[in-house]
Amino acid sequence: MSNKKVAFQDLIPYLEKNMAFHTAINIIDWDANTLAPEESSEYTAKAMGILSQEQFTSLINPKVKEIMEGLKEEALSQTEKAILRRLKKEYQKSEAVPANEMREFTELAARATNVWQKAKKEQNFSLYAPYLEKIVEYKKKFAGYSKKEGGSLYNVLLDGYEESFHVEELDRFFSKLKEEIIPLLKKVEQAEEIDDSFFYQEYDIEKQKEFNVFLAEYMGFNFKRGVIAESEHPFTTSWHNHDVRITTHYYKDNLSSAILSTIHEGGHALYEQGIRDEFTQTLVGDGASCAMHESQSRFYENVLGRSEAFWEPLYPKLQDTFPKQLGQVSLGQFVRALNKIKADFIRTEADELTYCLHIMVRYELEKQMIEEDVPVDKLPGLWNQKYQEYLGITPNNDKEGILQDVHWSMGDIGYFPSYALGNAFAAQIYHTMKKELPVEELLRKGKIAEITAYLREHIHQYGASKEPREMLKALTGEEFNPDYYIQYLKEKFEQVYQL
Amino acid sequence: MSNKKVAFQDLIPYLEKNMAFHTAINIIDWDANTLAPEESSEYTAKAMGILSQEQFTSLINPKVKEIMEGLKEEALSQTEKAILRRLKKEYQKSEAVPANEMREFTELAARATNVWQKAKKEQNFSLYAPYLEKIVEYKKKFAGYSKKEGGSLYNVLLDGYEESFHVEELDRFFSKLKEEIIPLLKKVEQAEEIDDSFFYQEYDIEKQKEFNVFLAEYMGFNFKRGVIAESEHPFTTSWHNHDVRITTHYYKDNLSSAILSTIHEGGHALYEQGIRDEFTQTLVGDGASCAMHESQSRFYENVLGRSEAFWEPLYPKLQDTFPKQLGQVSLGQFVRALNKIKADFIRTEADELTYCLHIMVRYELEKQMIEEDVPVDKLPGLWNQKYQEYLGITPNNDKEGILQDVHWSMGDIGYFPSYALGNAFAAQIYHTMKKELPVEELLRKGKIAEITAYLREHIHQYGASKEPREMLKALTGEEFNPDYYIQYLKEKFEQVYQL
Repeated sequence: MSNKKVAFQDLIPYLEKNMAFHTAINIIDWDANTLAPEESSEYTAKAMGILSQEQFTSLINPKVKEIMEGLKEEALSQTEKAILRRLKKEYQKSEAVPANEMREFTELAARATNVWQKAKKEQNFSLYAPYLEKIVEYKKKFAGYSKKEGGSLYNVLLDGYEESFHVEELDRFFSKLKEEIIPLLKKVEQAEEIDDSFFYQEYDIEKQKEFNVFLAEYMGFNFKRGVIAESEHPFTTSWHNHDVRITTHYYKDNLSSAILSTIHEGGHALYEQGIRDEFTQTLVGDGASCAMHESQSRFYENVLGRSEAFWEPLYPKLQDTFPKQLGQVSLGQFVRALNKIKADFIRTEADELTYCLHIMVRYELEKQMIEEDVPVDKLPGLWNQKYQEYLGITPNNDKEGILQDVHWSMGDIGYFPSYALGNAFAAQIYHTMKKELPVEELLRKGKIAEITAYLREHIHQYGASKEPREMLKALTGEEFNPDYYIQYLKEKFEQVYQL
Repeated sequence: MSNKKVAFQDLIPYLEKNMAFHTAINIIDWDANTLAPEESSEYTAKAMGILSQEQFTSLINPKVKEIMEGLKEEALSQTEKAILRRLKKEYQKSEAVPANEMREFTELAARATNVWQKAKKEQNFSLYAPYLEKIVEYKKKFAGYSKKEGGSLYNVLLDGYEESFHVEELDRFFSKLKEEIIPLLKKVEQAEEIDDSFFYQEYDIEKQKEFNVFLAEYMGFNFKRGVIAESEHPFTTSWHNHDVRITTHYYKDNLSSAILSTIHEGGHALYEQGIRDEFTQTLVGDGASCAMHESQSRFYENVLGRSEAFWEPLYPKLQDTFPKQLGQVSLGQFVRALNKIKADFIRTEADELTYCLHIMVRYELEKQMIEEDVPVDKLPGLWNQKYQEYLGITPNNDKEGILQDVHWSMGDIGYFPSYALGNAFAAQIYHTMKKELPVEELLRKGKIAEITAYLREHIHQYGASKEPREMLKALTGEEFNPDYYIQYLKEKFEQVYQL
């Protein structure tokens, strides 16, 4: 079959269909999360199911396979090679597991997610346990299909999210974290507590919106190519580099929540808006990986957005917007409050220092589930022990413990580490950036655009046409190195807390 | 081929795909008109083009045709028969014209629409004339493919929008209009002018929004199955009966514009929300026809929404919302102002009485274009003459004359009459309704829900599973009869203007 002469051009109609379905699915999903009326979902879901199936078969079909296998690498441009690489990954994913087993699993995961919701609401892990048990079984079975001689199952799962970042590297990363960050957290907890009570006064929501739009604009979010809306949980989505959308959730009694999520989602959005036209609407038109995406959002949110230099040109405007609440709060007090550390139960609300400890708990449990066959009914206990050991707190119930995240119920085992890797990428990039750009000075002068231009040059523009490791190496001159992250956290919080 | 035994069930996968693409296209279109950022459209259009093509081929393909032709009518349920009837119409449409000619025409229409926009902006018909000429040529050619022995080309075009409402019937309709409404308009113009100046004060937009949401809710718009947003031009769309969306455009210096368009679009929306679950997401899940849809929107807007009885329970709330502007305006003055008649140039802004005269001008010109080969460069002059003759005014330029509507540039010749038919359907339905329901009393008591229930019972629930003529006959006991419309207009405006 593949003797037939084929050209990359032959793939285009399939790739374009895939793009069109991807666009449709993303818009419907955006709409569902921002605007769709209460009773709409059940009906719209029928359309979504069909569109998802169409998207799948637009790429995974015998004709595409024939073309793909007939293509000669040497005849391809760089971009075509990158697209082909992604396409091959899609095939690997789809061919790794027998279709009927994948269908069974998809149904299981949908049910498990519903049960998880109920179990979380009722703080009752035992409802969910049998489903999680089956999820784990399936994931192990699936991983087994792709496992290489001598390889580990968990590495196969990790590969599904962040390719080539395996247990060996992650173990080193997390053991350093454990060594350095846990003692640091203990010291922070003995230092004087930071007062952030002014964040929790009443803040008019319309005024918050105005300020957040101003903030996004200041960051460089291009409103001619983007939209900001509201949703229950903040997120970023895009269908191409000319339509990138973020959401925020406003709380009447919390100022910092919306601000930090605007900066975080804004970081994701700058990445998407910065991808080159030649890549957008292709298989390499998104970010390079979850971790690389997260590195950008966390860089803006934490490295820039919680710094005094970032707020120097902006804080007067915020004070003008809320004179009663912030008139007496100095820039220094404001920024210190943004950096308050407090070990708490919920990952998504965690501060910059404890965040990676939350991830470490999940990483260790995932390894135990997959590699050590720990029975699921032992997991809540293990979870709570680890929280006590790493964060010094024990969840009061499973809702604020092991039931807090949706990921496992959907089968996403191996995903969590990419959040921590994102933080580490950000710190490594920042380390190099500081040598080449006067970051702090630029921020103080309101010239954040020059920082974004730097990231655009080295990261954003490439979309997924380059691999994360490749970009990291090209930018920083060395392989992935999590030491910068640990060093960054230590320096920053020793200073914030004057340790 | 069609000897193979087939069942309606075999069509389902194709119908469902079609539904999914329809959903996607409608959501993207809604998004484009309400929210999408400025520079998004060119890129999103690529996806839209592919989705439209997919929607087309999901129904128009050899397998569907084979099933369609193999089905035995007698083995089908009523609903299946209705769906099959619609499907056959789609085939007639697609098979009437050779595919390459249709492609050429689609490209021409896209260019013509762009040129029309420019020509309108520059008030320069001659830019647009060569395109319109070609559009007319194509439409005549296409109509020729379907014309029956002894039939007329224009009837073929009319059939494309409102099946079986042909020139013979429309001529009778419009000649009665001409006979009765033009003299009535002259009398109205000699009567004392109605003061509606209070509509054009400053009205806070946020307060207008609040009131319009209240108004939609009062009408029975179900917000659990619908959304109200803003757009440049108000419109209604839906992807199923559980997600129906309307838009309004708010003006700071015009109160009645948003109110009347909320009631108008609300009428469309009540129709869509009232369609039965068994029909939604099928080929008979929309309204029965353009005219039937327009009959509902115009019934709510004009028959109900411009009546004193409708406003009696609502006006105090509106006065409370705008005490400064309306505190001294009585209910009677307010409603009289909603019924002010003034011959003017723009169809979409026309009052209830002159609206049909605007349509008549277009109808007569369309007949001349298609049947009498009037050269396009004569059209502006004819247009202006007719406006002078029927409305007593001559457009100052082609922007407010023949260039005002987009329809012809997109090839929609034969569409306009359905607007007038909608008005006539509404009046005929109203005539019967009044015998069966105490409409005015219900309105005064705020019981509009009972009126909607009546329309739901006789019209809305059926979607497109019944033909307009069939529903009209079943409800009113007689064939389509435009006399009720003329009678309604005469009675109403003789009273409003005390003639």
